[in-house]
Amino acid sequence: MADIQAATDESALVVLSGGQDSTTCLYWAIDRFGTANVYTMSFDYGQRHKIELECAARIAEHASVSNVCLPINTFAAIGGDALTESDIAVANSLSAEGGLPNTFVPGRNLVFLTFAAAYAYQRGIEHLVTGVAQTDYSGYPDCREDTIRALQQTLRAGMESAIVIHTPLMHMSKKETVELAVQFGALPALALTHTCYNGERPPCGECPACQLRAKGFAEAGIQDPLLDSR
Amino acid sequence: MADIQAATDESALVVLSGGQDSTTCLYWAIDRFGTANVYTMSFDYGQRHKIELECAARIAEHASVSNVCLPINTFAAIGGDALTESDIAVANSLSAEGGLPNTFVPGRNLVFLTFAAAYAYQRGIEHLVTGVAQTDYSGYPDCREDTIRALQQTLRAGMESAIVIHTPLMHMSKKETVELAVQFGALPALALTHTCYNGERPPCGECPACQLRAKGFAEAGIQDPLLDSR
Repeated sequence: MADIQAATDESALVVLSGGQDSTTCLYWAIDRFGTANVYTMSFDYGQRHKIELECAARIAEHASVSNVCLPINTFAAIGGDALTESDIAVANSLSAEGGLPNTFVPGRNLVFLTFAAAYAYQRGIEHLVTGVAQTDYSGYPDCREDTIRALQQTLRAGMESAIVIHTPLMHMSKKETVELAVQFGALPALALTHTCYNGERPPCGECPACQLRAKGFAEAGIQDPLLDSR
Repeated sequence: MADIQAATDESALVVLSGGQDSTTCLYWAIDRFGTANVYTMSFDYGQRHKIELECAARIAEHASVSNVCLPINTFAAIGGDALTESDIAVANSLSAEGGLPNTFVPGRNLVFLTFAAAYAYQRGIEHLVTGVAQTDYSGYPDCREDTIRALQQTLRAGMESAIVIHTPLMHMSKKETVELAVQFGALPALALTHTCYNGERPPCGECPACQLRAKGFAEAGIQDPLLDSR
């Protein structure tokens, strides 16, 4: 169905973390570009929960698209953030002391998208898709629209390309992203996603990520398929 | 002398490749910020010539500044470029067929500077210094001023920082960079640099990089101290 609807031969690379948002974006991309023109990329950057990468691979398989996992050993060498150093606890609030949450890896999304653009450049892929959003979230500055716009300009200038970065969820609430997932048939794949900051499956239900996800599904009036699978 | 002249307590991180240009920039930074406020960073990204990293470490030691070497295993995984794949020959012209030279790693400098900015962010370092230049070179688009300006804007937005990227050599010819090296006392350190694309030491003298270097010294009327050491 999505393949028939696709009115373009252009191709897209979706940055797929294995979470709810990037999975929803994958189905947005399949609807727009067609299954045969969509690729996914994940990053093994030293995150605490490798289950994210297993989820990404399983989601891509479920959607019949390829999944390339690129290693990044640099963040661990830079050090000093909660998502890659196992001895630093994740704060039980979205934003500790009103500042940036301690899960902040400076420039993480900038690096992901730059590597994705390099990969896309070499393969003639014109579109990048990322699930970043500036609403309803932890306030990561590298997820905001002004950052993504500046990055797109940087990548175009720095690679002499016409790459486009798509951010379908940029201004959506969690409720709206759930509705988008329903619209594009992503709901079954959301059963395969991973969200929990504590790496638990079934999810802990207590961490900020689990609570945010639950709030979105509740507000949309949709049952989270991930919880069905418990 | 440089320490006395420094009129700031701000600090700078110099991206040090081990080559002529970044070494010249290191001495520019020492003059501006003072030895005690200057740090250097190199990248082990799968380059064919590890001698670059040894040179960088030796140059930093010579200048009495620290040198951190960050690993990047991602470019090799992306593949497809001459500087990291040992089975692809380096073209014997600066730009094969009028397009980008085949030593082009898409986005390499973008990645280097983003990682450097992340490192700087976590340590309160406000200034990055890079030896990129848009004149007299191979035409890498990620070395040009518009790219660096866009990247600075991206890093500021994406990390909520006031980071400044300095490019002292941006509009200089090779002759002028040699003169700058003399001005800031970098000449002895240039004996420790590595330029040759073929990884030879003493340099081959035949590759585009060796020829470009020789041309700059010749035009400045300065003897290259690297050749003295042969």
